[in-house]
Amino acid sequence: MARPAFASWLDDTNDVTQIFLSAGQVPGLINMAGGLPEPSTWPVEDLARLAADVVRSHPTEALAYSPIEGLPALRDAIARRFSTAGLALTRDNVLVTTGGMQALDLIGKALLEQGGLIAAQSPAYLGALDAWRPRRPAYRPVRLERAGVNLEQAFAGAAFAYTVPNFSNPTGRLVGLEERRALVDAAEAAGTWLVEDDPYGTLYFDGAPLPRMLELAAAGRPGPYDGPVIYLGTLSKELAPGLRLGWVIAAPSVVRALTTAKQGSDMCTSGLCQMILVRAFEEGLADRVLPRILSVYRDRRDTLARAMEDNLSDLLTWEVPSGGMFIWATARDARLDTDRLLRQALAHGVCITPSSVFDPEGRDRSAIRINFTLNPSDRLQEGTRRLAAAIRSTLAS
Amino acid sequence: MARPAFASWLDDTNDVTQIFLSAGQVPGLINMAGGLPEPSTWPVEDLARLAADVVRSHPTEALAYSPIEGLPALRDAIARRFSTAGLALTRDNVLVTTGGMQALDLIGKALLEQGGLIAAQSPAYLGALDAWRPRRPAYRPVRLERAGVNLEQAFAGAAFAYTVPNFSNPTGRLVGLEERRALVDAAEAAGTWLVEDDPYGTLYFDGAPLPRMLELAAAGRPGPYDGPVIYLGTLSKELAPGLRLGWVIAAPSVVRALTTAKQGSDMCTSGLCQMILVRAFEEGLADRVLPRILSVYRDRRDTLARAMEDNLSDLLTWEVPSGGMFIWATARDARLDTDRLLRQALAHGVCITPSSVFDPEGRDRSAIRINFTLNPSDRLQEGTRRLAAAIRSTLAS
Repeated sequence: MARPAFASWLDDTNDVTQIFLSAGQVPGLINMAGGLPEPSTWPVEDLARLAADVVRSHPTEALAYSPIEGLPALRDAIARRFSTAGLALTRDNVLVTTGGMQALDLIGKALLEQGGLIAAQSPAYLGALDAWRPRRPAYRPVRLERAGVNLEQAFAGAAFAYTVPNFSNPTGRLVGLEERRALVDAAEAAGTWLVEDDPYGTLYFDGAPLPRMLELAAAGRPGPYDGPVIYLGTLSKELAPGLRLGWVIAAPSVVRALTTAKQGSDMCTSGLCQMILVRAFEEGLADRVLPRILSVYRDRRDTLARAMEDNLSDLLTWEVPSGGMFIWATARDARLDTDRLLRQALAHGVCITPSSVFDPEGRDRSAIRINFTLNPSDRLQEGTRRLAAAIRSTLAS
Repeated sequence: MARPAFASWLDDTNDVTQIFLSAGQVPGLINMAGGLPEPSTWPVEDLARLAADVVRSHPTEALAYSPIEGLPALRDAIARRFSTAGLALTRDNVLVTTGGMQALDLIGKALLEQGGLIAAQSPAYLGALDAWRPRRPAYRPVRLERAGVNLEQAFAGAAFAYTVPNFSNPTGRLVGLEERRALVDAAEAAGTWLVEDDPYGTLYFDGAPLPRMLELAAAGRPGPYDGPVIYLGTLSKELAPGLRLGWVIAAPSVVRALTTAKQGSDMCTSGLCQMILVRAFEEGLADRVLPRILSVYRDRRDTLARAMEDNLSDLLTWEVPSGGMFIWATARDARLDTDRLLRQALAHGVCITPSSVFDPEGRDRSAIRINFTLNPSDRLQEGTRRLAAAIRSTLAS
């Protein structure tokens, strides 16, 4: 007998992911596709020392099942770290997750009915689209860069709105302070949740960080946080992604719903990794490594921007972002199909991400996302030369 | 404006979980409810040493994003460990998961449509019911202990069948060799997947382990494994649950579908924890700790069985299991409602798990699950005395 078919949402996935995976096999390929950090920035010796220390000094916390919500010491540390003069957080506002990705998965499980509506800043992070695909949601795109968008109308009836205000993935766009206020006001007025996904919140190269929407939502409302913003954080971009640690900061009712969802997802996050983070916060390790990360990534952004100016200015247009990990570039020639470009780029020994994977409908083939954090300058320069050749080949073919 | 309601499946959850969570606060409570290991069996010093070693010697594997399917070295090690003369496994048969619970979640995501049908050995592990609840499945109970069950009929039309053949949770029942063969044959004949959930597969106290259904499904079919059995393993019961490591062994097509599901769940499992397991397998650590675990748990099972004989034989009936973590006991008096008993038990300072949480319909209130692995003998004895008093109070009230 034939066995049952797999769930039908699996057929909706884009084959670009498969292409990326096989790209790892191409010798000499310059990978400017992913959002990978530079490994030399990781505090390897500190993490090795902390890993052994926490197992010896806190074997129960490190080795037993943790509470579903996370270790109380870590929830308290995160609540303290994100509290401000106007924002009072307690551990009841905090859920520890297995990386930032799990937070997206849990939001889908706890907030979305099958076929539910999401108002998403677009183009949108492909990992979020992946996380929610099993519920086959409908998307209402919110294009913040266009003038005159009626946010309250855009948010009306949505299970939640999704945004990446700091150096949006994929566009690298920084959502300004007034826009942040407008997003919070629209969420309040439309009566919906506002997800503030913030993996790049510390990666400001050129200026001081803007206030989080989490903070703006609490302004003028004393007492424990109970606002519409659901904030997602992670240390994958700083300490190291292999620890798989993230967190949600939200109203206690949201934390409770996500906790029930997490119980059936992985029961709890690794206590060993959680205890390493507790100690890393205590020692100020995350803050200590940040200046070097910013310096490396700022230089690489500048290198990539210069190399693009030299090699790609007649083919693509872009804005240089003030932080994050990516430059988003749009084809000058409307005939350039960036899905086809991906295949040509691989043939030329470079990998970028085409816009189709960031479009819930999979239709946008006008742009690409280029990462600058993983490669040193000579590779970034060579990568843009290969990309230019690949674009010319695609247009000629 | 009011904010959107949470997803409706969250209303289906049993409040017993909340009762368990608050039970942790009761001073002096004897917890015989959960499936928790005895912490003194953990190889703390070995794990501390390995944790530091792998960060220093394999920083990329430990600290970077892993491949979604898991580190190749770990997949290879698991494939080797579970291969036998008749069962040829490669890394394409193996997916690493964030604990055994994630494997259940991924199976729900990849194999179940909304409202799909599961043929489940019943009563069934409550964590599996939790994992699949967001898809609101229908259940067809399979009661293996009853004579004359037509398994092929029971499996027909199901997205998958679910079993725990080694010391089933909650009943502690060992599914015999002939039954295992019949389950595999029925899965083949009905054309469905057969999930073999095996968290207790090493916890045989009194005899040699029976062959896994994974192995039986491969018998007589040379070549790479491509059978209907989807095997779930974990080291949470041996090395330590805080590492959150489990694995799926299945046909390559199943591994690929689960990998797509995992990508949107947590992207990958902690590389640090994976590398610790690679080294623990290399050093034989998991096998070295097992004899002491078996000796402690065997003694505690015997202690609990004797204490139940002394205090509970006029109130409950049970069979002493030959392994695992639990004794399943049924009320002699049909008027005993074990949901009500839970509340009385807590008032008497002992916690057990009522049968309702293992019933997909939530209706069975005739039995309880008692854990023997967590508590030393004096606490097991005192716990059964308190439980006897609680049963008498429940019957009298």
